[in-house]
Amino acid sequence: MTGFVSLVGAGPGDPDLLTRKAVRRLAEADLVLYDALVAPEALELAPRAQRFFVGKRARREAIRQETIHGLMIRSARRGKRVVRLKCGDPFLLGRGGEEALALAAAGIPFEVVPGVSSAIAAPALAGIPVTHRGLASGFAVVSGHAEAAYRPILESLEPGCATVVVLMGLATRADVAALLLERGWRKETPAAILLAASTPESFAWTGRLESLGAVELPEDLREAPGTLVIGDVVSLAATIARVPEVAATAALAGHGRT
Amino acid sequence: MTGFVSLVGAGPGDPDLLTRKAVRRLAEADLVLYDALVAPEALELAPRAQRFFVGKRARREAIRQETIHGLMIRSARRGKRVVRLKCGDPFLLGRGGEEALALAAAGIPFEVVPGVSSAIAAPALAGIPVTHRGLASGFAVVSGHAEAAYRPILESLEPGCATVVVLMGLATRADVAALLLERGWRKETPAAILLAASTPESFAWTGRLESLGAVELPEDLREAPGTLVIGDVVSLAATIARVPEVAATAALAGHGRT
Repeated sequence: MTGFVSLVGAGPGDPDLLTRKAVRRLAEADLVLYDALVAPEALELAPRAQRFFVGKRARREAIRQETIHGLMIRSARRGKRVVRLKCGDPFLLGRGGEEALALAAAGIPFEVVPGVSSAIAAPALAGIPVTHRGLASGFAVVSGHAEAAYRPILESLEPGCATVVVLMGLATRADVAALLLERGWRKETPAAILLAASTPESFAWTGRLESLGAVELPEDLREAPGTLVIGDVVSLAATIARVPEVAATAALAGHGRT
Repeated sequence: MTGFVSLVGAGPGDPDLLTRKAVRRLAEADLVLYDALVAPEALELAPRAQRFFVGKRARREAIRQETIHGLMIRSARRGKRVVRLKCGDPFLLGRGGEEALALAAAGIPFEVVPGVSSAIAAPALAGIPVTHRGLASGFAVVSGHAEAAYRPILESLEPGCATVVVLMGLATRADVAALLLERGWRKETPAAILLAASTPESFAWTGRLESLGAVELPEDLREAPGTLVIGDVVSLAATIARVPEVAATAALAGHGRT
């Protein structure tokens, strides 16, 4: 009679980037516990479910992690099918591992449904491949949330040897840029700031590492999720994004009509 | 009258991990150019399309990259809707950036449809979050294909400061392990080899870094895609994967019947 918990990745924002498995789990769900930044359209895919917002909202105290664990466990014990809908991939930052450990400790059957991560998708949608022959054969992803999270990794990486992707680093971008410059990265290294990737509000700035910290961002996107990308691959955006998806989508629509 | 090319990520293997957008592009496609490791079920989602295999097969010469570019460009110029279906994410390794550049140079409208990457999903499905509070606040992804691709990154990373994920590194895993040990990583560092992740044939080995190079793998999976994971987060698999998805899915089926 025990229910089941699915830790589901909602992708970077566009509900079209949900996986088929995520869609099916939402359709069957009795309860959906969702984070900030999850699209309303994703929630509409769970018409049978009770839906609880358990994310952080600006200027309000976040729900404690243990409260989320307790909600999942109690609901599963009552036989509910629970979807824990998390931004991006459920196991990349965002405490998905802790939720899995809590479920395992409580003996609740669960699964992980991987999602499209902003770490790769936000750059891709701006015309930036995180790896590219001759420019980068690997990349590092760090949390920009706190210095203790990114300093050891960014400090050790040989300048220019890999693309650097920083999630949750909008507030600390000046410090991240200063750290990389101090470590020996060239000030001309191409860099990007990607906001609200995959949504209609998406915004991309590209420039040089030396400007990353100081560039002004649109006021209305201050609360939007942001991804920083640093490395030579950013230079490809000028060519790859020259055929913007908007124009391309219009061409597709036109094609469909002929 | 020009067509349109979609560079689409097919995800790690399970066709249920295709995105909704990928499914729609396949349904509308006139031509699908697909790689090895793309599931037959994914191709069945493109019933209208001609389907060409353009991947590498063991012991046969691969189709040249320029041939793939030419096929995409010519077909689009004839007004076709082309899906270039690539394993994982189209812009992570695998030359997706080169394909985008070729399309841009030819003036062909195109888009990138991000996919679920094995770099994150293969570990997740084996119970390994690539980041976890207290164990790793970031991770590095490298290609294990050639030493020149992974050495500069792995050599510079401070031992233990991030999770290391190696794609296409089955053949070079002894060298990768030796390099990390020489660099100062502890020989007890937890490590994993994940084969055919997200498919019914999936296989996971977990152990210590010192054994990564020598462990014998199942003969029938020698051609399967493999992901290496090195770092303390691998230790979580013992707890998180203790409630295996198989058991969990059975529980779900049982739940569905009551």
